[in-house]
Amino acid sequence: MKVNTNPVRGMKDFLPDEAELRERVKRTIIDTYTSFGYRKIETPILEHLNLLQSGDGGDNEKLTFKVMKRGEKLKIDTAKEENDIADSGMRFDLTVPLTRIYANNQGNIPLPFKVIQADWVFRAERPQKGRYRQFMQCDIDVIGEKDIIAEIDLLIASSQALLNIGFEDFTIKINDRKVLKDLATKWGFSEEDHESVFITLDKLDKIGKDGVKKELIEKEYSHDAITAMWFDIGQFNIGEYNHIYLTDDLKKVIEGINLTSTGKFKIEFDPTLVRGMGYYTGMIYEIKYKDYPGSVGGGGRYDKMIGKRIGQDVPACGFSIGFERIVDIMLEEEQANSSIEKLAIIFDLEYHDIKRIYQEAETQRITNNYIVSVVNKEKKFGKQLKKLKDMGFTRFGELTDNHSAFTSKPLE
Amino acid sequence: MKVNTNPVRGMKDFLPDEAELRERVKRTIIDTYTSFGYRKIETPILEHLNLLQSGDGGDNEKLTFKVMKRGEKLKIDTAKEENDIADSGMRFDLTVPLTRIYANNQGNIPLPFKVIQADWVFRAERPQKGRYRQFMQCDIDVIGEKDIIAEIDLLIASSQALLNIGFEDFTIKINDRKVLKDLATKWGFSEEDHESVFITLDKLDKIGKDGVKKELIEKEYSHDAITAMWFDIGQFNIGEYNHIYLTDDLKKVIEGINLTSTGKFKIEFDPTLVRGMGYYTGMIYEIKYKDYPGSVGGGGRYDKMIGKRIGQDVPACGFSIGFERIVDIMLEEEQANSSIEKLAIIFDLEYHDIKRIYQEAETQRITNNYIVSVVNKEKKFGKQLKKLKDMGFTRFGELTDNHSAFTSKPLE
Repeated sequence: MKVNTNPVRGMKDFLPDEAELRERVKRTIIDTYTSFGYRKIETPILEHLNLLQSGDGGDNEKLTFKVMKRGEKLKIDTAKEENDIADSGMRFDLTVPLTRIYANNQGNIPLPFKVIQADWVFRAERPQKGRYRQFMQCDIDVIGEKDIIAEIDLLIASSQALLNIGFEDFTIKINDRKVLKDLATKWGFSEEDHESVFITLDKLDKIGKDGVKKELIEKEYSHDAITAMWFDIGQFNIGEYNHIYLTDDLKKVIEGINLTSTGKFKIEFDPTLVRGMGYYTGMIYEIKYKDYPGSVGGGGRYDKMIGKRIGQDVPACGFSIGFERIVDIMLEEEQANSSIEKLAIIFDLEYHDIKRIYQEAETQRITNNYIVSVVNKEKKFGKQLKKLKDMGFTRFGELTDNHSAFTSKPLE
Repeated sequence: MKVNTNPVRGMKDFLPDEAELRERVKRTIIDTYTSFGYRKIETPILEHLNLLQSGDGGDNEKLTFKVMKRGEKLKIDTAKEENDIADSGMRFDLTVPLTRIYANNQGNIPLPFKVIQADWVFRAERPQKGRYRQFMQCDIDVIGEKDIIAEIDLLIASSQALLNIGFEDFTIKINDRKVLKDLATKWGFSEEDHESVFITLDKLDKIGKDGVKKELIEKEYSHDAITAMWFDIGQFNIGEYNHIYLTDDLKKVIEGINLTSTGKFKIEFDPTLVRGMGYYTGMIYEIKYKDYPGSVGGGGRYDKMIGKRIGQDVPACGFSIGFERIVDIMLEEEQANSSIEKLAIIFDLEYHDIKRIYQEAETQRITNNYIVSVVNKEKKFGKQLKKLKDMGFTRFGELTDNHSAFTSKPLE
């Protein structure tokens, strides 16, 4: 049967050059976080649908891929709505599963719990360039630490991960939901309008301060409040002005991290930083790299979310490093190549014994740290060498007989 | 809202000790295969349902988790059967996606293509001890090599992966589908009964030769054929008898690998080896470790499967290393511990500056290769030390002031 061999809509296949880069970046991230004392956990791709629809996921909840019930549970004839035929779904982030696994094991987990997760998540978004419906998320979280040391640790560890990947000169933007709320109140927006105002303010990067003003006018908020906000946004790039709104905790985090960074990256207060998720309760942050739009990571404190599962608040904050964004930038900047030599040992089974071939391959692996592939000799030797080069081999060597010494040459 | 915080039925959460072991084993497997010249690819978890139901997956096709259509495509009211409400599903293996990605990129992939895949697959099996509905599969495949060097390379690389994980004294069992078919014909089973006879023979390990006989009698095959088979099975443990059925290719593979293994593992012919999947066309193999039931990996040649996608046969063979089985055995044999030292640096933000703390942590990482976690000092110090030990820390050190030298002690 002839079938469509494209990946399903909005999803992507990765051939070796890209897949190997992804593996290297993922390992660098995990290794860096591990060296800071974070520990990996794994949860299933599928979660109960009522957990994925409990309200903590915001708009992402609508993007859930739902999985059909099975066997007797599935009654298509009498089904009226989606939740009649589905009871689980594919996770849209790693935070919802984290709160679930913590709730399910709370008695056995000493706090603070410093966690790494690096795995697939799924969102049925409208497919667009550079955004896929399945993507890799790399998160760290600190559960059970109310002190700002949690934020400092997340941010220093994540910055070190970026440095280890090869990124420098990035900027951490930091704010606090409390600062945002105080500002909104000062401008004159009433408490129940805050979230809606923040959703508009979150677009500042894309639509500018005049765009924000226009959208808020369309939302019919008070002219005075909008004008006060518009004026402040224009002043926020002046450092001294910003400092009026800095809290003591923000000041400690910013000074501490700037002193530690030894100039390789910086952190600055951005009172207009919003971050999308409604569950944030304290500091929020994201990292900008050069002029690339969007961020290469971000996160915040969510002290109330675990409480919803276990009936008792537990402080928590997290950082999600922008794995897919980082890989895209590395491909754009051509930072993607590995430096390991790849050797093809060409042989002919008519003349060589298997023991000799594989012992030579192992010797080359151990002595020279080469990747070594054993390759059958083809009839057209010149053509074969060209193909090996296309496959990414950097060296080749021919086994001439079973007893002679082996030497290899660069493929040119 | 109070929700069920267990993982969905048949799936599993992994806390740090187990998740970190899994990460180490996965990396050892990928690194070994990479050093042999295999290259990683990644395909999406979801595949088109008609690909997952094309017949190559055998019984696994029935175990597919189906994913609901979305938006306008989903018409619950008029839906009659499952495929009216689902058009994609979660993959049950990595071989079906491999043939799809190859078919979709065949012009751009020089052969032979040596591939690594290591990712999640899903099967809605009845949950039972040690078997989960989501599990990790680690496969290698060689596409485009008809010569036995493909099998030799797969088996030596996979054996090396097992050695690198710490397994020794395992046995590769090898057979050829052609040998099986010749035997079945010799015994007197007609061609159309072969697959059914093999399905019963595949249970030999579990039910013994008398069990096999009984089941074949129930299936109402000829008494003479069953008796001939039963007699041969009894003789197969005698080496000389086996050799009657050995093909030249099997002989070359077995001698070659036994010479290369330097006694750390062995390979032997097993004319009763079946391997479940109907798509195998040539040599088949699996690896037994000590007395553990089942295998720690297996695979075979499937020269006809890619042809179904692209209309032209391409030789291929693969090996799937039993990741979940290996991790289970390591947990049972308590080979699970990492030897890296974990240091907690205990501080008090009232007295220490962040720069001093994080510079000391980085020094300890670089100088001693420790994992270093920065930890807030708690009121009850003795209790805190005990907790740190429970968390897996092996050393601790206290920052006394910002200028003194730092030393650490083992946690006892």
